[in-house]
Amino acid sequence: MTVEITTLSNGMRVVTDRMAHLETTSLGVWVAAGARHETEAETGISHLLEHMAFKGTARRSARQIAEEIEAVGGELNAATGLEHTAYYARVLKGDEGTALDILADILLNSSYADDELEREREVILQEIAMIQDSPDEIVYDLMHDAAYPNQPAGRPIIGTPESVKRITVGDLRGFLAARYVPGQMIVSAAGAVDHDRLVRHVEALFGGLIPVNVAGDIRASYSGGTRVSSKLFEQSHLLLAFEGPSYRDPDMYTAQVFSGLFGGGMSSRLFQEVRERRGLCYSIYSSAWGLDDTGLFGVHAATGPGMMAELIDVVGKEFQEIAANGPADAEIGRSKAQLKSGLLMALESSSARAEQMARHLLIHGRLVPPSELVAAVEVVSAEGIAAFAARLVAGKPAVALVGAGKKSADLAHRAEAMART
Amino acid sequence: MTVEITTLSNGMRVVTDRMAHLETTSLGVWVAAGARHETEAETGISHLLEHMAFKGTARRSARQIAEEIEAVGGELNAATGLEHTAYYARVLKGDEGTALDILADILLNSSYADDELEREREVILQEIAMIQDSPDEIVYDLMHDAAYPNQPAGRPIIGTPESVKRITVGDLRGFLAARYVPGQMIVSAAGAVDHDRLVRHVEALFGGLIPVNVAGDIRASYSGGTRVSSKLFEQSHLLLAFEGPSYRDPDMYTAQVFSGLFGGGMSSRLFQEVRERRGLCYSIYSSAWGLDDTGLFGVHAATGPGMMAELIDVVGKEFQEIAANGPADAEIGRSKAQLKSGLLMALESSSARAEQMARHLLIHGRLVPPSELVAAVEVVSAEGIAAFAARLVAGKPAVALVGAGKKSADLAHRAEAMART
Repeated sequence: MTVEITTLSNGMRVVTDRMAHLETTSLGVWVAAGARHETEAETGISHLLEHMAFKGTARRSARQIAEEIEAVGGELNAATGLEHTAYYARVLKGDEGTALDILADILLNSSYADDELEREREVILQEIAMIQDSPDEIVYDLMHDAAYPNQPAGRPIIGTPESVKRITVGDLRGFLAARYVPGQMIVSAAGAVDHDRLVRHVEALFGGLIPVNVAGDIRASYSGGTRVSSKLFEQSHLLLAFEGPSYRDPDMYTAQVFSGLFGGGMSSRLFQEVRERRGLCYSIYSSAWGLDDTGLFGVHAATGPGMMAELIDVVGKEFQEIAANGPADAEIGRSKAQLKSGLLMALESSSARAEQMARHLLIHGRLVPPSELVAAVEVVSAEGIAAFAARLVAGKPAVALVGAGKKSADLAHRAEAMART
Repeated sequence: MTVEITTLSNGMRVVTDRMAHLETTSLGVWVAAGARHETEAETGISHLLEHMAFKGTARRSARQIAEEIEAVGGELNAATGLEHTAYYARVLKGDEGTALDILADILLNSSYADDELEREREVILQEIAMIQDSPDEIVYDLMHDAAYPNQPAGRPIIGTPESVKRITVGDLRGFLAARYVPGQMIVSAAGAVDHDRLVRHVEALFGGLIPVNVAGDIRASYSGGTRVSSKLFEQSHLLLAFEGPSYRDPDMYTAQVFSGLFGGGMSSRLFQEVRERRGLCYSIYSSAWGLDDTGLFGVHAATGPGMMAELIDVVGKEFQEIAANGPADAEIGRSKAQLKSGLLMALESSSARAEQMARHLLIHGRLVPPSELVAAVEVVSAEGIAAFAARLVAGKPAVALVGAGKKSADLAHRAEAMART
């Protein structure tokens, strides 16, 4: 067995997968902290905290952090989500100690200097402006607001210009103390890594963290409805979503097989009907997004404003059709084959493997073996998918439409009406 | 040795890297055909041909192509560049024969049916609209037009709405016959692959292709100048480029080490000065782009229109500073370390490996061993970088500026003036 897990006395977990043929290691710290743990006034604090981790510690300036990891040819990065924040590195064999030392330093000893915070606000305001230039990102934020209005799960991960300007160093330290606690943090590494040595190093760096209980999550309460942006773009973007399963829900496997055959690859129903048969768009796909207590199932497509009405009608009909009659066996077979090969392909990448192990521990409290994932996919049936689709379209959709100017609202309502049974 | 190369009697080459620990294979066909081989009337034909490859053959409909590869859990994709077009797949061990059979079929036996072509034009018009919504893509097209005006190398790879509407089936067949010839095609595979079996299969599928000489490329003639879009976006995008080395030029290694320390990672001069010290932007980086006979070296950055003037001045000063005084040894060391570890990391990915081998054969006519790449990086010196930067800024820049509306032209001229010695 190449996988080992150790839990430190303070509750922090260390997981490794030694991939003997690799000359590099991917490793990182995954924290169960994200946008859904923020109060309204704190909107964007998880993401701002992630940015500020790179802005200097008691021992290293921002420049020294960057120079030290890049001097060994390594890469250091981070990402903030609704429930998790990841800080990770990829380095050559033998440099994982350097990477871990830097990761620990930026997580435990950041300075949060006032002048660095002021500059970083400006950087994030630019990042927000970049998102506002991306209709394919705006449409996700609007859909989330329709799905979870006035709740942390529905607010933008990056925050708003107002909230980003308002957050103080005290707020950052408070959020860090409340959420960056050892029971909610995983060190995960895959590649050229020695488990015992890594554990000793993690113990030395993180062993002094005191266990703290975290506040329970506010349950996400799905609502649905329509949201539009009056901005004009060349293409209009539709995101049509329904309430879907949590990643804890066995229905998530049904959702994934369904998504694959409905709007996954090139052979999926939406790709074949909307792009191949009608030439209505360049890009269309479906996805299932799981959270701790709920989830979403949605379709994203972009087309010219003059063709959006037709696209909406086709997508609505495809939902109705599959809810009424279910998929064919061949479609299910292809979708399962793609999910299974995707699992195998991810196992061959050290970075995907490190992330997968961390997420399994944070979400399920254990590593779910590939054989169990495959078995769960195998039992999904045509009847199960039809019933799943019928439950979806019996609910109220969350619809976002961006880019069609004044027509956006009418198109959003059309999508809402078309998708419902 | 895990790498083997075979040349068929018609000149087509087959290269494999057997990565014994992998359960999947990446394989594809790389063709020395791209946008720079198009006449003005044909603008976008390489890309349209790539799209039409998926629209049906004598044996398979578009739907059957998609279904067959996805039934084995595989992925099939393609990409068109200025000089090369790639058609590639990733499959599980044992399915590489299926993937190769499909790849050969779509390259050799495509139907180019009229109705499929009409629909695919619509799909590409949507893809063009998507690019027009992306200021970070518009700025590249404008810069290329400034660098290589009225030449194939300066025209958009995707074509224009006019050219895409005009191209006929006869044009497609003519381009295919002229450029998709065995001496200009490489089958490359990495992962769980057996060289001899693959060669036999390639011989059976492609062995009947008759060798044809291809027309020589029109030399790209760098000009420089400014191009702006009057479109308004939240952020303005600058692309400031100079004539740089071809990928055949030993100076390309100098360009890469320079790019790494100038605007590569987090410790680079531009990232530190523009983002970390001044908070002017979220994203800034430099790149060296090589072509067969020439190349470009450029900096891309985005910021609010009110801060673009300051950003331009800083970038210009950084160019002048490094041309005058060269980099420090520590900067060079970091950049070399990053290039070398990037090489190692790419060797661990079957898809990156397959692409690298194909590109080496198309570009250099041989596989350049990692040790030779490392040695070429190692000899780059501070003096060499200073001289390289001085040559860059002695030339006329190609400047594109997008997103600042009426201010765009003034800002572009400011960038042109600031960057020159």
